[in-house]
Amino acid sequence: MSSNTFGTLFRVTSFGESHGAGIGVVIDGVPPRLKLDLAAVQRQLDRRRPGQSRITSPRAETDKVEVLSGLHEGETTGAPLTLFVRNSDTRPEDYENLRNTFRPGHADYSWFKKYGVRDYLGGGRASGRETIARVAAGAVARQILAVRGIHILAHVVSVGDIDAHTFDPEAIEANPVRCADPDAAAKMEALILQVKEQGDSIGGVVELRCQGVPTGLGDPVFDKLDARLAAAMLSIGATKGVEFGMGFALARMRGSEAHDPIGPEGVRGERAGGILGGVSNGGEIVFRVAVKPPASIRHEQNTVTLDNQPHRIAVQGRHDPCIAPRVVPVAEAMAALVLVDALMRQIALRGVLPEAGEDDA
Amino acid sequence: MSSNTFGTLFRVTSFGESHGAGIGVVIDGVPPRLKLDLAAVQRQLDRRRPGQSRITSPRAETDKVEVLSGLHEGETTGAPLTLFVRNSDTRPEDYENLRNTFRPGHADYSWFKKYGVRDYLGGGRASGRETIARVAAGAVARQILAVRGIHILAHVVSVGDIDAHTFDPEAIEANPVRCADPDAAAKMEALILQVKEQGDSIGGVVELRCQGVPTGLGDPVFDKLDARLAAAMLSIGATKGVEFGMGFALARMRGSEAHDPIGPEGVRGERAGGILGGVSNGGEIVFRVAVKPPASIRHEQNTVTLDNQPHRIAVQGRHDPCIAPRVVPVAEAMAALVLVDALMRQIALRGVLPEAGEDDA
Amino acid sequence: MSSNTFGTLFRVTSFGESHGAGIGVVIDGVPPRLKLDLAAVQRQLDRRRPGQSRITSPRAETDKVEVLSGLHEGETTGAPLTLFVRNSDTRPEDYENLRNTFRPGHADYSWFKKYGVRDYLGGGRASGRETIARVAAGAVARQILAVRGIHILAHVVSVGDIDAHTFDPEAIEANPVRCADPDAAAKMEALILQVKEQGDSIGGVVELRCQGVPTGLGDPVFDKLDARLAAAMLSIGATKGVEFGMGFALARMRGSEAHDPIGPEGVRGERAGGILGGVSNGGEIVFRVAVKPPASIRHEQNTVTLDNQPHRIAVQGRHDPCIAPRVVPVAEAMAALVLVDALMRQIALRGVLPEAGEDDA
Amino acid sequence: MSSNTFGTLFRVTSFGESHGAGIGVVIDGVPPRLKLDLAAVQRQLDRRRPGQSRITSPRAETDKVEVLSGLHEGETTGAPLTLFVRNSDTRPEDYENLRNTFRPGHADYSWFKKYGVRDYLGGGRASGRETIARVAAGAVARQILAVRGIHILAHVVSVGDIDAHTFDPEAIEANPVRCADPDAAAKMEALILQVKEQGDSIGGVVELRCQGVPTGLGDPVFDKLDARLAAAMLSIGATKGVEFGMGFALARMRGSEAHDPIGPEGVRGERAGGILGGVSNGGEIVFRVAVKPPASIRHEQNTVTLDNQPHRIAVQGRHDPCIAPRVVPVAEAMAALVLVDALMRQIALRGVLPEAGEDDA
Repeated sequence: MSSNTFGTLFRVTSFGESHGAGIGVVIDGVPPRLKLDLAAVQRQLDRRRPGQSRITSPRAETDKVEVLSGLHEGETTGAPLTLFVRNSDTRPEDYENLRNTFRPGHADYSWFKKYGVRDYLGGGRASGRETIARVAAGAVARQILAVRGIHILAHVVSVGDIDAHTFDPEAIEANPVRCADPDAAAKMEALILQVKEQGDSIGGVVELRCQGVPTGLGDPVFDKLDARLAAAMLSIGATKGVEFGMGFALARMRGSEAHDPIGPEGVRGERAGGILGGVSNGGEIVFRVAVKPPASIRHEQNTVTLDNQPHRIAVQGRHDPCIAPRVVPVAEAMAALVLVDALMRQIALRGVLPEAGEDDA
Repeated sequence: MSSNTFGTLFRVTSFGESHGAGIGVVIDGVPPRLKLDLAAVQRQLDRRRPGQSRITSPRAETDKVEVLSGLHEGETTGAPLTLFVRNSDTRPEDYENLRNTFRPGHADYSWFKKYGVRDYLGGGRASGRETIARVAAGAVARQILAVRGIHILAHVVSVGDIDAHTFDPEAIEANPVRCADPDAAAKMEALILQVKEQGDSIGGVVELRCQGVPTGLGDPVFDKLDARLAAAMLSIGATKGVEFGMGFALARMRGSEAHDPIGPEGVRGERAGGILGGVSNGGEIVFRVAVKPPASIRHEQNTVTLDNQPHRIAVQGRHDPCIAPRVVPVAEAMAALVLVDALMRQIALRGVLPEAGEDDA
Repeated sequence: MSSNTFGTLFRVTSFGESHGAGIGVVIDGVPPRLKLDLAAVQRQLDRRRPGQSRITSPRAETDKVEVLSGLHEGETTGAPLTLFVRNSDTRPEDYENLRNTFRPGHADYSWFKKYGVRDYLGGGRASGRETIARVAAGAVARQILAVRGIHILAHVVSVGDIDAHTFDPEAIEANPVRCADPDAAAKMEALILQVKEQGDSIGGVVELRCQGVPTGLGDPVFDKLDARLAAAMLSIGATKGVEFGMGFALARMRGSEAHDPIGPEGVRGERAGGILGGVSNGGEIVFRVAVKPPASIRHEQNTVTLDNQPHRIAVQGRHDPCIAPRVVPVAEAMAALVLVDALMRQIALRGVLPEAGEDDA
Repeated sequence: MSSNTFGTLFRVTSFGESHGAGIGVVIDGVPPRLKLDLAAVQRQLDRRRPGQSRITSPRAETDKVEVLSGLHEGETTGAPLTLFVRNSDTRPEDYENLRNTFRPGHADYSWFKKYGVRDYLGGGRASGRETIARVAAGAVARQILAVRGIHILAHVVSVGDIDAHTFDPEAIEANPVRCADPDAAAKMEALILQVKEQGDSIGGVVELRCQGVPTGLGDPVFDKLDARLAAAMLSIGATKGVEFGMGFALARMRGSEAHDPIGPEGVRGERAGGILGGVSNGGEIVFRVAVKPPASIRHEQNTVTLDNQPHRIAVQGRHDPCIAPRVVPVAEAMAALVLVDALMRQIALRGVLPEAGEDDA
């Protein structure tokens, strides 16, 4: 509804910018009596944070999470849970040359047109640091989902023209690209380093798999599960597309080969990606997100200044040459927010008239 | 927020099912004193309705729109505007064989799991007829957008493996496939008819182009314009993916070739599809939607019955062999709903402190 | 959120005006598999409708409810349930003299300023007929609440200076004033008739009692149960105040006499009206609503015309001399909408982590 | 919508509790380019804070506001504005005796039933300290309203049986009771001190006056201005009733004496309190809020322990004997939130079709 709040019952409000005091999130609708595992929240933030490897921005942030509200003796109370991460390694001087110009492919042009003002320091709120709020809230959501046996996993399936061909979930966190195919991972890493040296950047594709999702999540006709997941994914910076199951490939297929058959054990296959008519069908939910190359490159590009004069720009500073590996924990977090909200809605819908039948959720 | 309501300020509530009294929509937040052009609403409904050509379902509905509320002497009053279309050509007997079984690839399995009950007649609310509500509301939204010089156009860019190669906007409504390339259109039509004869179905891709959109629409970080458009598109039945600008192709590109340069006249090119950081950048907004092959085919498929026994199903009845051409007006309508809502939000944001600067919207 | 939609999970969208096609309501979030008792809905509409007695407007409407969507074989399906009542006894000619002027104390002046246009026929959407939507939706909500043992009852406790002194629930529907004190009821009726003959109108107070409400309903800090009930009551035309428990009298008391003691069986007494800190405390929920005298009187008053010229107005036509008796079923309906929504929210909040403790709802 | 978020376009999310890190608020939808006057925000917080006089709680908090996000070079940017106030003078030991029991008339009983857990330290989130969030956000809203010439003022019109009889706006902040009648103020203060010495507490009534509100604010039929204001007021702890204009007194009057006449200069009088049909009529908006006596008194009362055993309680610690004077800035703040939100909605509604007529807002 509002631009910085996401969700209906499990509602997350994100705040903060790259070079302000920090980034935070208020989570409203957290069920009470959850024994919050803060270390698990920190682990997710560590997955997101810069400086993890040679292929990420070297900004040196520890990103330690702090609880501002909502915990009492280690348990949630039903009050809003607020998590906050301070900024420490800010370098406003790095952005002085951006004060009066716009980066092609970056939010700063369109946001300036929208707001009539801009915080050019580190991208302000358009910074990737905003995703701290998402990852922290998602880490809480995941603890609730885990109780229900729902788990979410994302991995990079392509960088540039290099595609993953095998899927070993154990491999994902063992390489800096977060690719489930170790061979492809090595090639992707080499490509990213090469691109980085050239002062360029490169895109990639992230795949998500949600396991253990019960049938019945999603709220037709407008809050369909795929519609919500799509909005969640496209709300992440640098994403330009999303597809479910076989996605765009389905548009080239015939019905006789495109549909997952149904058996007594449920839907077989993932051509539909685990969602039919916007509602989870009991299978694994599978979708992919296209991530474009980052905008901040040393390569010279045509742009304009604030007073609309032509200008050539070459961006310096600390930037990621490929953002897909760091989109992985963010996309997982956003998916978790969508799923816990859909779960709570389904519980309300089917729980109010208990005698009206079993609740599949 | 709620499952059958869409929008924040221009809010549309859809109701009705395939074999009930009819399909309707309540539009709340319509600005007062709009001289409603009902004939224009009817024309949009006529574009959506079945029986238009050999490649659409032969169900014979006139789909005449009726005003239930909100007009006074031909003008909107600020009261909710309710439009209603009665069902006439219902054939409940056609669905008797679906009473106890599920179609693979169709919403009826997952919806039954969600609700514990189902209206199997014509798909109930999962029917394509529900889109009447969207098209009617979208037709109203378009009249508001037109005042602001904003126009939306969709067309089919592929059916199965046949792609359009040229773009002549005049050609779109001149062929039943709604393809802007007349040569490709002929081949697509032939393919659809062939598939239909085989008792099969086929997918396609729809492209949307929104012209005249001012800079500044979209509300970071969660209600980004692309996030809202993506949710709108994925809320349409049979859609499985959406991509903006060059979309998934950007994931294979380098930054040095992926970004639209900026000149004194604005952003040049549509690699980003007219949206940067979730906010319109002043260029044409371009995106594509993947449409899967319809689920109702004569081809035999494995499924189960309501009591979970294995079953072979071959669907009879009146169905579309390719739904992409009929998605065209629906997708346009949903895009219009997103844009008018974003426009109203931007007017509120920038209008409340007039001295704070020019409003780009 | 939106002006004509009420509720978070059980969401009601009202549409229609006095002299249009009719009045309707879309109810979204109705739990599936409710065997809807349409006769019970009709009974509530009959309690609201004009022409019931000598003290109500003689407009002759049968107000028969019609189902436009959401029922399948008598059961709800999870689809939006739409109920519609056609207008039949419209008399546009009665309002010709109001076309160019405003009634003091009526919505038509402020609404014209808001919308820049007005539907002067029967008050347009400001008509009491709009409450048909509320009563119909409330009747559905009550069927859900009844399953949970929750019942709502309202009655008139004063008309002008005549107060009820006894409380016999059986008496309420046995007199046209809907007063639980038969003696006071007779005096109230006589006063209303006298006022009517004088071409004047009179105010009154309605009390609501909600029985069987479990502890724990209401969502601090902004969606407190009393805040939601207050908004619901003040959204009804002609209401000017609301107070819970002892209400304004508490402002004159000391703490030592103002608080309900707590015993092992729960909270004793209704000084707080069954709500503490915005959450139901397990006691009966009791509150009162102030209803002003209707604006449409034959008595001459100072006003202006549409072009802002001074004018004297004396309103003719079919109007209620005291609206409090007809507010009774409307206020009950609105309370039912608030309670079912709060109940569903509480079920979601406490149901998602089942091991976290018992759900009091 | 969500329990801790208030507003549609100007949206405020409150977080924090009495004995946690502090109290904060995220304000989303703040128009960009507002030069925020932080000193003015601090002044409002100073009006709310404890320890101001002999009649308020002696808790020693400086309540210094800190900006966590949303400002760039002193201006708002369109990003969420987050304000935070740290707790410093917490005394958890004061609440040890409340760990296992409930205060009659306090939220702690019903909240425990709702959440199944409670933060008994200082009332947790039910503490009056939560209103810091409201006052801080309201102070921002007031800066926007001031640009539009809208001003809000509240004062205490009664404490126990002592009523104010004169109205001198200058007097309000000159006495600790915030009463506009200096003579009554002295008596009220004496009464409060007497009650305090007796270990008791007392109620009062607060009146609000909103000046300069344009015609046309408020969104029928559910988001009427009075409905929104009522919800805002009843969401404040300790409030038990609200009435607009002559309020409950109107229920005893005849139409011929109850309505404000209309003249060429607008509506004359404040019997309706400046709102007709839920929409501002151009007059001063006037309403009153009933405030009950605080629950924490030394007087012994019957209650139960957590394991439901009868218990006698006498509350020690730092509490206000009469909360009405401190409700004054909180109620003003909540009214400001409602008005700025209604203003932005009206601007959107009337601004989107500029040629459709003048916007009264």
